[in-house]
Amino acid sequence: MLENTSRTELATLGEFGLIEHLVSFFENKQTATLKGVGDDAAVLKYAEKCILVSTDMLLEGVHFDLSFQPLKHLGYKAVAVNVSDICAMNGTAKQITVSIGISSKFSLEAVEEIYAGIKAACDFYEIDLIGGDTCASKQGLVLSLTVIGDTDEKNIVYRSGAKEGDLLCVSGDLGGAYVGLQLLEREKKVFLENPNIQPDLEGNDYIVGRQLKPEARKDIIEIFKKINLKPTSMIDISDGLSSEIFHICSKSEVGMTIYEEKIPIDPTTSMMALEFNLDPNTTALNGGEDYELLFTIDQKDYNKIKNDPDISVIGHCVSRSEGIHIISRNETKHALKAQGWKAF
Amino acid sequence: MLENTSRTELATLGEFGLIEHLVSFFENKQTATLKGVGDDAAVLKYAEKCILVSTDMLLEGVHFDLSFQPLKHLGYKAVAVNVSDICAMNGTAKQITVSIGISSKFSLEAVEEIYAGIKAACDFYEIDLIGGDTCASKQGLVLSLTVIGDTDEKNIVYRSGAKEGDLLCVSGDLGGAYVGLQLLEREKKVFLENPNIQPDLEGNDYIVGRQLKPEARKDIIEIFKKINLKPTSMIDISDGLSSEIFHICSKSEVGMTIYEEKIPIDPTTSMMALEFNLDPNTTALNGGEDYELLFTIDQKDYNKIKNDPDISVIGHCVSRSEGIHIISRNETKHALKAQGWKAF
Repeated sequence: MLENTSRTELATLGEFGLIEHLVSFFENKQTATLKGVGDDAAVLKYAEKCILVSTDMLLEGVHFDLSFQPLKHLGYKAVAVNVSDICAMNGTAKQITVSIGISSKFSLEAVEEIYAGIKAACDFYEIDLIGGDTCASKQGLVLSLTVIGDTDEKNIVYRSGAKEGDLLCVSGDLGGAYVGLQLLEREKKVFLENPNIQPDLEGNDYIVGRQLKPEARKDIIEIFKKINLKPTSMIDISDGLSSEIFHICSKSEVGMTIYEEKIPIDPTTSMMALEFNLDPNTTALNGGEDYELLFTIDQKDYNKIKNDPDISVIGHCVSRSEGIHIISRNETKHALKAQGWKAF
Repeated sequence: MLENTSRTELATLGEFGLIEHLVSFFENKQTATLKGVGDDAAVLKYAEKCILVSTDMLLEGVHFDLSFQPLKHLGYKAVAVNVSDICAMNGTAKQITVSIGISSKFSLEAVEEIYAGIKAACDFYEIDLIGGDTCASKQGLVLSLTVIGDTDEKNIVYRSGAKEGDLLCVSGDLGGAYVGLQLLEREKKVFLENPNIQPDLEGNDYIVGRQLKPEARKDIIEIFKKINLKPTSMIDISDGLSSEIFHICSKSEVGMTIYEEKIPIDPTTSMMALEFNLDPNTTALNGGEDYELLFTIDQKDYNKIKNDPDISVIGHCVSRSEGIHIISRNETKHALKAQGWKAF
């Protein structure tokens, strides 16, 4: 990935030179940002709004594999997954801090690629980069981002607001990021075994993109505002549909019934899943990293979303004692298992 | 350090179990914290106050050495160095997020030690832990913290407000953290060469403590409030006095003259520096990690601080064209060099 670029050693800039160089491409856009990078702390002013804060850490070899993750996409993804958390509160992301641990194997040009991706995401989501930390890493690449957003207190949607009878909805489609990862890992293996064979990703742009460059569903939050809909609970799907359903049920003290046939899966995802001998539903339920929004709405709000092709109703809330179940295509009922992503 | 504790594998809890377990010991104290850990984002409300945000990343093998850094102290230090940045803005730290990358060599008990230190610091500085991320690291231990604080807009002190004639002041004493580190590294080397020899740290509690468990000078910020003093510029000393002087001069567009004999150095620091054939002044100027506050005040405010034994006037601001100099004990004038800590 880095073969065709010139190489400037990081040591030629030093830590402060590096930070100044990297942030020189960024411009503040938010009126709430009184002071961004360049002092001991950033200064923000939100007046009566509530402030939302979320943070995510990405580690090389755990969350990403640099042998197939382009650095620019990685920077973009790091921002997008953080923005997704603010969306999941029904808020608007406004600022972000980026801390980065860089091993000396990286050139300045490589770090610039990461920041080009961060900048592309900051531009797209209209976020100010307001601070961070840049340090040498003796291990792999480390990225740690904290995103700050805002919303009116009355608009905040917690995981805990779902109630019996509410409809469970999901944006977009699921499982794509997971099968995209399987495909990338297979092609990496093929390449390592025989470097003359080029990766075969043709026709799979969609699922590869879902893995490498996911988007936060800021557009869905904007739709909520437009159609005057406040979900009763919401979470973003980072660990897989099942796992997130369990979070909502636990925090809201409800049970849930979902319908296998209602789970939105893109045809490309289904075909690739079958190629890997995976049940497409399993990839959607347990794959993770789709960064779609999972939310519950009051039944009276059904008309507001029923014609949106980007929102699927996949189930409904039941009493806590009824538990959490999935109704399969052959109409049998199974207890849902939350496998999700096991980090340890 | 971990020999005497029982060992619970992290895998027995899983990621969510681990987070829930670790945060169960924390309690929110700040009224601005509407919602802490447990949703996609924390929710804060500051009304008319300005919000301060700062972030720091600590990497094993770069910022700390687990062979002599007790885990509890490490957790404490990680919080303290972040709080120090908020102090340097003349603000009050209120909330913190903690992201941690943990290699599988760590037991639950080891992670609990880190969080015990984080909790001790949160209690001492009255900060709420409001979020974070917990993940497996294939490399060493990674800590990334973001601290949020507040202050009235009119009280914010930037690095950029120093003006010609202002007095340059520093809290506490300098160089201790650096010679403390030299001592710890020497004793580690002795121990590695002959494990039967116990580390000889006797009589050096002060400098060892300065390295392993520094404090943010929140007390100095409280004194400023009490004596109604607003510094014209301020920064915390993380990279060494020289380096921070250059930051203030650069942002404030002033020059500086400092006096070697005025630099506060503890006798323990001086003696240990000499044992290592180091000039005590050099350790104070370039050592770093002291987390004292370096600030400038208007001359008319001199009376407010002159009797505080914890604040030393070490120089004054001159015009930018005069440059940055140090007057040595023999009254010769040298251009100051900012060596600081080179991260790359």
